[in-house]
Amino acid sequence: MVTLTGAEIGKHNTKESCWVIVHGKAYDVTEFLPEHPGGQKIILKYAGKDATKEFDPIHPSDTLDKYLPADKHLGLVDMASVKTDPQEEELMDELELARIERVKRMPPVSQCYNLLDFEDIARQTMKKTAWAYYSSGADDEITLRENHAAFHRIWFRPKVLVDVSRIDLSTTMLGCPCSVPFYVTATALGKLGNPEGEVVLTRAGYRENVIQMIPTLASCSFDEIVDAKQGDQIQWLQLYVNQDREITRKIVQHAEKRGCRALWITVDAPQLGRREKDMRSKYDEQAANVQDNESTVDRSQGAARAISSFIDPSLSWKDIPWFQSITKMPIVLKGVQRAEDAIKAVEYGVDAILLSNHGGRQLDFARPGIEVLAEVMAALRQHGYEHKIEVYIDGGIRRGTDILKAICMGAKGVGIGRPFLYAMSTYGETGVVRAMQLLKDELTMNMRLIGATKISDLDESFVDVGSISTHTNAPRDHLSSQAYDRLVTPPFVKSKL
Amino acid sequence: MVTLTGAEIGKHNTKESCWVIVHGKAYDVTEFLPEHPGGQKIILKYAGKDATKEFDPIHPSDTLDKYLPADKHLGLVDMASVKTDPQEEELMDELELARIERVKRMPPVSQCYNLLDFEDIARQTMKKTAWAYYSSGADDEITLRENHAAFHRIWFRPKVLVDVSRIDLSTTMLGCPCSVPFYVTATALGKLGNPEGEVVLTRAGYRENVIQMIPTLASCSFDEIVDAKQGDQIQWLQLYVNQDREITRKIVQHAEKRGCRALWITVDAPQLGRREKDMRSKYDEQAANVQDNESTVDRSQGAARAISSFIDPSLSWKDIPWFQSITKMPIVLKGVQRAEDAIKAVEYGVDAILLSNHGGRQLDFARPGIEVLAEVMAALRQHGYEHKIEVYIDGGIRRGTDILKAICMGAKGVGIGRPFLYAMSTYGETGVVRAMQLLKDELTMNMRLIGATKISDLDESFVDVGSISTHTNAPRDHLSSQAYDRLVTPPFVKSKL
Amino acid sequence: MVTLTGAEIGKHNTKESCWVIVHGKAYDVTEFLPEHPGGQKIILKYAGKDATKEFDPIHPSDTLDKYLPADKHLGLVDMASVKTDPQEEELMDELELARIERVKRMPPVSQCYNLLDFEDIARQTMKKTAWAYYSSGADDEITLRENHAAFHRIWFRPKVLVDVSRIDLSTTMLGCPCSVPFYVTATALGKLGNPEGEVVLTRAGYRENVIQMIPTLASCSFDEIVDAKQGDQIQWLQLYVNQDREITRKIVQHAEKRGCRALWITVDAPQLGRREKDMRSKYDEQAANVQDNESTVDRSQGAARAISSFIDPSLSWKDIPWFQSITKMPIVLKGVQRAEDAIKAVEYGVDAILLSNHGGRQLDFARPGIEVLAEVMAALRQHGYEHKIEVYIDGGIRRGTDILKAICMGAKGVGIGRPFLYAMSTYGETGVVRAMQLLKDELTMNMRLIGATKISDLDESFVDVGSISTHTNAPRDHLSSQAYDRLVTPPFVKSKL
Amino acid sequence: MVTLTGAEIGKHNTKESCWVIVHGKAYDVTEFLPEHPGGQKIILKYAGKDATKEFDPIHPSDTLDKYLPADKHLGLVDMASVKTDPQEEELMDELELARIERVKRMPPVSQCYNLLDFEDIARQTMKKTAWAYYSSGADDEITLRENHAAFHRIWFRPKVLVDVSRIDLSTTMLGCPCSVPFYVTATALGKLGNPEGEVVLTRAGYRENVIQMIPTLASCSFDEIVDAKQGDQIQWLQLYVNQDREITRKIVQHAEKRGCRALWITVDAPQLGRREKDMRSKYDEQAANVQDNESTVDRSQGAARAISSFIDPSLSWKDIPWFQSITKMPIVLKGVQRAEDAIKAVEYGVDAILLSNHGGRQLDFARPGIEVLAEVMAALRQHGYEHKIEVYIDGGIRRGTDILKAICMGAKGVGIGRPFLYAMSTYGETGVVRAMQLLKDELTMNMRLIGATKISDLDESFVDVGSISTHTNAPRDHLSSQAYDRLVTPPFVKSKL
Repeated sequence: MVTLTGAEIGKHNTKESCWVIVHGKAYDVTEFLPEHPGGQKIILKYAGKDATKEFDPIHPSDTLDKYLPADKHLGLVDMASVKTDPQEEELMDELELARIERVKRMPPVSQCYNLLDFEDIARQTMKKTAWAYYSSGADDEITLRENHAAFHRIWFRPKVLVDVSRIDLSTTMLGCPCSVPFYVTATALGKLGNPEGEVVLTRAGYRENVIQMIPTLASCSFDEIVDAKQGDQIQWLQLYVNQDREITRKIVQHAEKRGCRALWITVDAPQLGRREKDMRSKYDEQAANVQDNESTVDRSQGAARAISSFIDPSLSWKDIPWFQSITKMPIVLKGVQRAEDAIKAVEYGVDAILLSNHGGRQLDFARPGIEVLAEVMAALRQHGYEHKIEVYIDGGIRRGTDILKAICMGAKGVGIGRPFLYAMSTYGETGVVRAMQLLKDELTMNMRLIGATKISDLDESFVDVGSISTHTNAPRDHLSSQAYDRLVTPPFVKSKL
Repeated sequence: MVTLTGAEIGKHNTKESCWVIVHGKAYDVTEFLPEHPGGQKIILKYAGKDATKEFDPIHPSDTLDKYLPADKHLGLVDMASVKTDPQEEELMDELELARIERVKRMPPVSQCYNLLDFEDIARQTMKKTAWAYYSSGADDEITLRENHAAFHRIWFRPKVLVDVSRIDLSTTMLGCPCSVPFYVTATALGKLGNPEGEVVLTRAGYRENVIQMIPTLASCSFDEIVDAKQGDQIQWLQLYVNQDREITRKIVQHAEKRGCRALWITVDAPQLGRREKDMRSKYDEQAANVQDNESTVDRSQGAARAISSFIDPSLSWKDIPWFQSITKMPIVLKGVQRAEDAIKAVEYGVDAILLSNHGGRQLDFARPGIEVLAEVMAALRQHGYEHKIEVYIDGGIRRGTDILKAICMGAKGVGIGRPFLYAMSTYGETGVVRAMQLLKDELTMNMRLIGATKISDLDESFVDVGSISTHTNAPRDHLSSQAYDRLVTPPFVKSKL
Repeated sequence: MVTLTGAEIGKHNTKESCWVIVHGKAYDVTEFLPEHPGGQKIILKYAGKDATKEFDPIHPSDTLDKYLPADKHLGLVDMASVKTDPQEEELMDELELARIERVKRMPPVSQCYNLLDFEDIARQTMKKTAWAYYSSGADDEITLRENHAAFHRIWFRPKVLVDVSRIDLSTTMLGCPCSVPFYVTATALGKLGNPEGEVVLTRAGYRENVIQMIPTLASCSFDEIVDAKQGDQIQWLQLYVNQDREITRKIVQHAEKRGCRALWITVDAPQLGRREKDMRSKYDEQAANVQDNESTVDRSQGAARAISSFIDPSLSWKDIPWFQSITKMPIVLKGVQRAEDAIKAVEYGVDAILLSNHGGRQLDFARPGIEVLAEVMAALRQHGYEHKIEVYIDGGIRRGTDILKAICMGAKGVGIGRPFLYAMSTYGETGVVRAMQLLKDELTMNMRLIGATKISDLDESFVDVGSISTHTNAPRDHLSSQAYDRLVTPPFVKSKL
Repeated sequence: MVTLTGAEIGKHNTKESCWVIVHGKAYDVTEFLPEHPGGQKIILKYAGKDATKEFDPIHPSDTLDKYLPADKHLGLVDMASVKTDPQEEELMDELELARIERVKRMPPVSQCYNLLDFEDIARQTMKKTAWAYYSSGADDEITLRENHAAFHRIWFRPKVLVDVSRIDLSTTMLGCPCSVPFYVTATALGKLGNPEGEVVLTRAGYRENVIQMIPTLASCSFDEIVDAKQGDQIQWLQLYVNQDREITRKIVQHAEKRGCRALWITVDAPQLGRREKDMRSKYDEQAANVQDNESTVDRSQGAARAISSFIDPSLSWKDIPWFQSITKMPIVLKGVQRAEDAIKAVEYGVDAILLSNHGGRQLDFARPGIEVLAEVMAALRQHGYEHKIEVYIDGGIRRGTDILKAICMGAKGVGIGRPFLYAMSTYGETGVVRAMQLLKDELTMNMRLIGATKISDLDESFVDVGSISTHTNAPRDHLSSQAYDRLVTPPFVKSKL
């Protein structure tokens, strides 16, 4: 195989002939341009150049082998001959320089006392586009904020004078034993936050005995994440169902073979959401000083949509028996949002449901999982179904008390996503481990303080949920506040001077 | 016809003899002064001068022909002989200069991701008086803000596992087929925001297949707006009923002849509202440094009142049969606000009602349309009338989710006013088209995410409206907050230095 | 009678011999010191000096004649011989200079579009102590703010298609005809805001045909206020009941003789409230740089307590028949706050009650009058008493809509206090007239917009009061917010530089 | 006994040989290091040095005698030979200098008009670590703030025309006569705020006839506090139950012998809470510029945990009879939080319960005492138990109205903690006396204003508690707000300059 030079590759910098370098190898992607799920624009930006930095977080390492025919693999590149773009440094604006300075002055990890501390540091130290991808939500981010706020409508009714010398947080979820009733839920594009990607979560999960759900849209490949598993560590698979069911079948059966212990089918994302913070950050980076007056709506906005075009919007209840036929793993419907669908899930023989609004990233004004939980548990009990299915929730969990509230109300466990991403993006594995420890520490103390010694002690008598469905306090609507021009009282006459 | 010079006209600059120039022609308005609906003051400001700039947004082009006798039309003016007021430039204050600078630096339209983005840019780039006229509301603007906030008390109950590959937003309103369940509602004085006025909305409506309601108080003449119609584009007529019913009859029958497909009679504005932001902005412009200590309340405040003195406050239910006798167009009562009146409307054989508080511009503490909708639909169902009348709402709609909520609750469609004005005032036709596309894009995605494929799928099961009538969270009261002097804890003794 | 010099008087500047000058005459107040309701301290500040400026707003002009024995009246002073305190000017701090500058640049009165505009200008232009006395409320001023906020929990249900060509605001209150259903309520110390005092309100009331209630604690004497009456203008008397009932009897019978048409007995102030804003402002003025470490609670705090020590805390229901025996004027209980007392009032044959919490100046967390109105009207109807007594409310009224809401809910009329004081303190009679006109203008328009043509049309169907008793939104607690030290996320390490 | 020099002691500055000076005496604490409840780290910081300043607030004066064997008492130190650390002054940062400056300019105590004034001054003048220890609460301090906010959901229904000439605030609590229905509750580490510690509260309590509860974790020794008692002053004992019941028995019986009149057993703190503000402040002081990247959770965080490791988490209902067997003092369960436990307390023959969440310092989202009071009184009445037990509350009380509300709802009395600490930390005994007087003054006035003359007049008819359990208005969540990156509308293009 020949070795190519930067100069040679640099000539192929147009739509007509487009070569790019990734990890020291050159590829001819001219024919692939129209098929790229993230649009042509982003590839053309790197036409004739090294695209590794942009490529990495979005694509698992096996992507090019899987999707680009062998004859488009042009061979090794003499990287010494590739010039770095001198402009790159210059383009770095003041905000970015300030960010880099903040990274240098980060507080020690021991100063993070809770999950929100990691989040606030991530906000100030992550690359703007990465932060925007992780933190953004649908529309006005009202559901995003409500997810956390909803927990504030639930209050405790602690018991006193209970012997709480020993606290045991262990439980089982989907038949898997675990040290705590929470798990690391699936989130996309881990390398945006940490160059190693999702395997960092795998390692931390092992250290703290916390189950990990492997995302379909990981930056690492599925096998890399499974390979990072240690001992009898437990992993589950999160699945976006492909329009080509054969591909889906292969993914599921491969996961089962590699030891995954449950299949979580995402049902709340027939189309991936539109997140304006994500779109805005991407624009800022790519087009900062360009006057671009196209009026047509660009449908490839943000990282989210770029990576999800294969997802099948026709997925429906009638597909469920097929899934049951291709795997022995317990099946979970990820993203149920009303009692009627919970009942249906029992009747379809599904093993568990996750009440979730996809982290507030899909439909604004979808209700928080914790609120839907109250509705669902009441309906299940009414049908006598409460022991026929396990119920999970996710969204907005930041404190041990949040977890306790969910368990008291009937959840079997809860998923945590962004907080571990923020811990990973700031302090790596150390951060994730500390975040998990902090939650355990909070849980242990709070169990003691409400007068419960083990997970099975927890029941509805420990919580006052009377206000759970009261939506009178909608979270603050920032865009609307900004656009509103407030009334003022009469101005004083300007001084003559 | 003679050609007049600026010098000649300049002599007629008093109450006793008042000439003005409009579009290169001179007019003697001396006798008309006391009849001018907007008061004498504003005309006298331009006595002996060119009034075109002030005249245009407020008056359709056929106004002078219609209302000023032919003998007061003095003929052409040699515009080269008319001096521009050198003071005008000087009077431009710092705020205005900053505004003009902002206009130059407007973000590209592709950066507007939602309707509030247009609004915020309009706030910063429109002329102060124009912005104030469009954006202002009654009294403390509590209803104005509640109109939008009320949508935040409604939450979704999405279905999952529905095949949503194809989404169809089309529907009919008043028998007219249309691509989406929203229409461009009637708003006054389009030229305040864009020199071309309402025809910009007509053109955008054509491009996006959105119905337009033509306002009585348009800056363009009715015929100009109809002439701008293309293909089988649909228009409706909004009507302020004149004290002279003969005038009203002519307007209605002319509209029907010109193809208007529905008659929307405004019933919530026997007197046009008083909007302090509008009044304040007008004062600032006209009287900035004048100490004016009149105590009597000036009844010609703001643009709103200036243009509406002909509206008949005696309009009542007994006029309805007469309207039914003069037109075959479906009749809609625009501005119903309580269930009793909705029932009455059915009994009077009216075709549809619009639940509206006139964009919060009339009566402060009138309830939002979306809230009245819940009351009205319940009453209609109780009377078995729910299929006898179509129900529309407007007010505060900014998002696709807002529209979906209204349709789920029983509305046939919703009207949108200010957002399209803001889009038109900032980016013209391109802006309005983009605004419509953004709404369609949001609607399509949100239909998919709640699990509905067509408008007729939508019903009450998709929404949680339990908090809709809870007014405990009154919007912030800005004037009152400003006037209140907050309590403070004891101040420290001042340092001796 | 001798003429005294400044030098002679200046010698009597101690507790042992204390002379003061008021309006050019000298008085020996040594023996009176311990009896002064406002405490000795404030008199001693002026021992040997001219006290006129401090004396005037607090004391009606007949005070010295009434309360100081003739032999303590020392005679005329040669005012040329009295030196002004050179320090006074120097003591004027920056804040006071800024205030005086603001007074010069006050907006023209025509720029005040509503009552809150007057209030905000008063806040910025009144002397600090005067503003504090007028504007302050009990404790954390939560009731003070709730009084206004409570109106925001009531929403309108307007009727449309009602002939509203003519609007008639006239009504009767306590048998007295009047142009509007509001009156000027009694407030103390009018000269703090305007050197002429309460007669300014009398004159404005005459011009706008608005009834005035004369306060016991006026700065002007009762007779001065009655003398200012014109034509068939109507006045009422507000009464603080004196511990010496004979004094009370004389006051009541004198008022009746002078034409007062109703007797409003204050029943919510057995002790005048403690208002910290008032206390704080007084301290700032008197003791700014003095380190004063007394720990004992000073019971003569603020202007309020200084003027009220004669009020009888033993006043009770058994006194009512006595009042009925000494006057033929209708009797009103001013300050009722629960339904049980309203029923009792009917049974005692009282003519009317005022539901009021004394402008939020007495008991914090007393409920707003408008809220108590809902409770009281329900109880009266339940007992069949709704036509046996008239019900009034006051507190927090700033808008025509506030008045309409009260009338719809069953009030016969409403009292307005502070807003007219603020109008008077900023623009004098002109201001009060304009404030009254603005209210009338708002009322007329709002009657039209809700579809009512006369006061008797108004009933409960026009309002949605479902949220009236919901106190979940307590007004912001400023002291507590200030004292609270908010949690923060970890700080970044300080840069080495 | 030898006299040691600073130089000799200075040599023993390691883990292997660790000597410290306290109050002029030297101690060998090498062997004690691993047992120190507050961790080794804090002792090692003072190895070979004078630790008196750090030692004093945390340890009663008899600590070393009690816990360190006699042979480790090394004898007197020649203090002249001990060098002060020159670095100490240098380390004082700008914030600390500003604080010291503020202390010099403190407002006179007479300027404190309410308990929040003391709190705000304390916030600005106390040492950061001391303030953090006193003021901090669990997790997001939501319960901490809710404790105060909950009172804002209760409104008064005053009676008028009641003879209120005489107001009597006296009552009994646990059989003890007292001047007011509040007491000084137990709070730890008084010397953090005032070098004299808890005896300051004792003296103030004597002057104002207010009962004091003596804390287990006082800075003064138990006997010092009892010795400070005067006349027939009443004291109670607060007890943390030791894992060694014999120690507990001795403490209880010693207290009874020394005249304590009631035993308050803390039941809401099997583990002392984790308070992040406290932890953060400690870190700032000790480790300001150290990069400390340990990820393991340090379990000795903050002052709270350091002092509480002996508390027995196994304490349970079955221990109650044993307490009843060892003392004749009335027994109170301090920290009950649900109705079921109140009923159980009656059935166990307990004399009283305190509804409390430990000042918001233990479990976040524990409900405020005042809210639990409504639940508990309803349950007691339902069981016919309302006269079988006394009920107390504490938490968030800052105003006389707060106290009245609790008594109206059925509480026998209320405990007040932090406010007296703040008064003591700012103005010492004078401050505490004034704080007590202010509360009495408020109580007297407010009794008068609601129409009650003595404590037994107060009942539920005086309050509107309809909103007491409404948690829709969760207090503001500061950490979460800080971490959230709000959405913005599109930025304008940057100017080319």
